[in-house]
Amino acid sequence: MPRDSSLSLTEEIGFLALAAEAAKEITLSWFRQPIEIEDKEDHSPVTIADRATEAELRRLIASHFPADGILGEEEAPSNPESRRIWVVDPIDGTRSFITGHPLYGCLIALLQDGIPLLGQIDMPVLGERWQGRKGAPSTLNGAACRTRKCQRLSDAWIYTTSPQAFPGRSLAAFEALSARGRLTRYGGDCYNYGLLASGHCDLVAETGLQPFDYLPLVPVIEGAGGVITDWQGQSLSLHSAGDVIAAATPELHAEALSLLRGQAPGPAG
Amino acid sequence: MPRDSSLSLTEEIGFLALAAEAAKEITLSWFRQPIEIEDKEDHSPVTIADRATEAELRRLIASHFPADGILGEEEAPSNPESRRIWVVDPIDGTRSFITGHPLYGCLIALLQDGIPLLGQIDMPVLGERWQGRKGAPSTLNGAACRTRKCQRLSDAWIYTTSPQAFPGRSLAAFEALSARGRLTRYGGDCYNYGLLASGHCDLVAETGLQPFDYLPLVPVIEGAGGVITDWQGQSLSLHSAGDVIAAATPELHAEALSLLRGQAPGPAG
Repeated sequence: MPRDSSLSLTEEIGFLALAAEAAKEITLSWFRQPIEIEDKEDHSPVTIADRATEAELRRLIASHFPADGILGEEEAPSNPESRRIWVVDPIDGTRSFITGHPLYGCLIALLQDGIPLLGQIDMPVLGERWQGRKGAPSTLNGAACRTRKCQRLSDAWIYTTSPQAFPGRSLAAFEALSARGRLTRYGGDCYNYGLLASGHCDLVAETGLQPFDYLPLVPVIEGAGGVITDWQGQSLSLHSAGDVIAAATPELHAEALSLLRGQAPGPAG
Repeated sequence: MPRDSSLSLTEEIGFLALAAEAAKEITLSWFRQPIEIEDKEDHSPVTIADRATEAELRRLIASHFPADGILGEEEAPSNPESRRIWVVDPIDGTRSFITGHPLYGCLIALLQDGIPLLGQIDMPVLGERWQGRKGAPSTLNGAACRTRKCQRLSDAWIYTTSPQAFPGRSLAAFEALSARGRLTRYGGDCYNYGLLASGHCDLVAETGLQPFDYLPLVPVIEGAGGVITDWQGQSLSLHSAGDVIAAATPELHAEALSLLRGQAPGPAG
């Protein structure tokens, strides 16, 4: 049966829940247990829990959708020429995970022809799961969720993970944004985007993300009424530089972008 | 019946749990609900949930221990000349609370002659409660907890709430600490100290805390084998300046302190 570009995707949406449950079982079995931590080439930490979870997600995807491609954090891509690509981040927030902190998530997206059609943010410890589907309302644990109607930066609650994630001029750009917002809170990784989709914060700005970090966020944010792009205002794709700005409304996104534009970090920071 | 300095404190420990449950019921009833936010004189936010929770805690303390003093975040002190003072922070992490983020806590301490005898960190959404009693092992949800045996800064996992909380030279001091540690994670408020007491992170450094923020942490950290002082290495008291360093071991505390000492911020930052 050929797969077309239909947006019903009933089987794939069901699969998202199945995959989240499988990943949750593995990560919870390692959470707050003694675990060896390796430093990867980019100095980010990785554990057996990341690798075991990604392996299981890959096994499940290959079993349910054998023709589809897979892009993950820990292994080489499979079927990269496929029109449909699953993008997985088994543990987003590995620094949280290895320090026994409940704010880690499991991210999955489905892309067709490079466009994110489905996205999921699952928080195993917290029991919160956001799902997004292109053209449909996003959900938190099955109930529709919406961004807050914040249209001005001066009213905005801003989240970002770490000041240390902003290389070069991007730190000054973020600080300019933060100084004009109402409140800034640090920490959180993917959870910040879920909170934005549910109307609890209004703006998330980060740099240095990988496709498996940011692509699963796109359908969730857009389906909740928000806007998510790179710091130049371009749609996020497999080839984006990794700077991300997500906002509750188009107006707030435009105001934030006007501050950040031209200051997005290049590869050398 | 005169109260002596006995450390059994059975009635008071039972009261900690009762107070946490009462506070939890109030804060959860407001969590992720539309709520008006005021900016206090120091520009920190406060809500009706902070005020209602503190009022209930004060009512309970006055009812159970009418001779004791009370110091809280939102109201003037009661019986400040009492030898026994209860110190309460109804919502530690108000920025988290108002943005629907589960990392807010309720803090309570009991001081006698200025010494923190009991301390409690309760996380209402997460269902985690740390208790500490001077001279006894600290507990998480009733089970004894211990810090990790991390003795060197180069092995340490460091937590702090926000880079924006470090005034003046203290930011450079924290960054020097962070650069020598293994990993730094932001966000968290009082939760970071609970994670430290349970051996999940090794070092927490902050400035600008108030007595109701830091005094409840002292028995929890010390009873778990850790060390908590100000940035000069002095014990924390009602009159400390508000810079706090907590470490998993005396050795790690000494190494961190040698970096920070002399850089503690004065009142003007």
